Amino acid sequence: MSDLKPITLYVHARGPNPKKVIIFLEELGVPYNSVVIANSKEESYLAINPNGRLPAIVDPNNDDLTLWESGAILEYISEKYDGDNKFSPVTDKEKWQAKQYLHFQMSGQGPYYGQYMWFNFFHPEQVPSAKERYGEQIVRVFGVLDRILKDKEYLVGDRLTYVDLAFIPWDKLALGVLDGELAKKYDVENKYPNFYAWHKRLVERPSVTKAFTEA
Amino acid sequence: MSDLKPITLYVHARGPNPKKVIIFLEELGVPYNSVVIANSKEESYLAINPNGRLPAIVDPNNDDLTLWESGAILEYISEKYDGDNKFSPVTDKEKWQAKQYLHFQMSGQGPYYGQYMWFNFFHPEQVPSAKERYGEQIVRVFGVLDRILKDKEYLVGDRLTYVDLAFIPWDKLALGVLDGELAKKYDVENKYPNFYAWHKRLVERPSVTKAFTEA
Repeated sequence: MSDLKPITLYVHARGPNPKKVIIFLEELGVPYNSVVIANSKEESYLAINPNGRLPAIVDPNNDDLTLWESGAILEYISEKYDGDNKFSPVTDKEKWQAKQYLHFQMSGQGPYYGQYMWFNFFHPEQVPSAKERYGEQIVRVFGVLDRILKDKEYLVGDRLTYVDLAFIPWDKLALGVLDGELAKKYDVENKYPNFYAWHKRLVERPSVTKAFTEA
Repeated sequence: MSDLKPITLYVHARGPNPKKVIIFLEELGVPYNSVVIANSKEESYLAINPNGRLPAIVDPNNDDLTLWESGAILEYISEKYDGDNKFSPVTDKEKWQAKQYLHFQMSGQGPYYGQYMWFNFFHPEQVPSAKERYGEQIVRVFGVLDRILKDKEYLVGDRLTYVDLAFIPWDKLALGVLDGELAKKYDVENKYPNFYAWHKRLVERPSVTKAFTEA
């Protein structure tokens, strides 16, 4: 894809959502330039994304199309840059399954895992019952994924798609944070073996290493 | 659309997410049968949606395709039942904007508003700082929408699309709950006039009345 101009990808130094996009771009070999936004509430960035969150992209190959929300960006990359369906669903049924799981990732995984992080690291007071709630919600999502992945290697069509990739950053964070507190407390490896094996397969990919070692 | 078999729509008696789908189906005049699920964690329903949440659909017009996550269902209805683009974006740019706002609704509106409800009505102890946090998050979303809607009547292409409809149930709930506590405390009508006028326009639609008076 050497004829492509690099996509501008706005990221922050930490936080899982931009990493979803990095992983997918790396897998496809689509060129991009990361721009680290120190303060996403500044007017200069709000002009790009009025929600003041990351990631966002500007695509010089498509009339500088500006897009935010990682779920929408993944779908855009799939449609515009994965014409061979290397990591994208092919059949109509698989296409709708992919959308279903992507919305699950966006609405059911990210926000709940994020609240766990909030109450552990950012909330102005200690609220054990809130930490407990969100830890349980994370493990509930592990359980849902474990059920979906029974006898399957991947979520859609039994081959790797961008929807599997979308789950990686938050799962990796949730399993690693606080020295693996949740993984130990809830015995995730043994209680959710389909989920755990899937996650292990995914995080071994070089694209994931790259996303977690560079901004 | 009298040649269509009714779509089976799984709903619960309360909760905003199934109402998004009802509103869109009502606007399009697509026939559907609502099935109220009393316990979404029962095995019979988990076989339909392993996430144990509502809504879900089964479409007899498409080989009984089963789909969950309201965001995916709205996109499905748009593609399969709004061929005239009556409530769907037309241009490529508008299509991506619609996806962006839909993911914002799914990840940035619903889950945060939902946590406000959780800490007000379901959490096992009173946590004022958590109520405060999620009230502020709701009003933050009002502010984002207010900025997006400056000089605009609707989110995408300045005409009503399913993405506007998607925001209605949670906004209506947030503005009405606890006798309008948030609306008063944060003076929403005056501080976020673009948002407020848009919301008022939307809730006047007969489809919304229908969604909020029937299961």
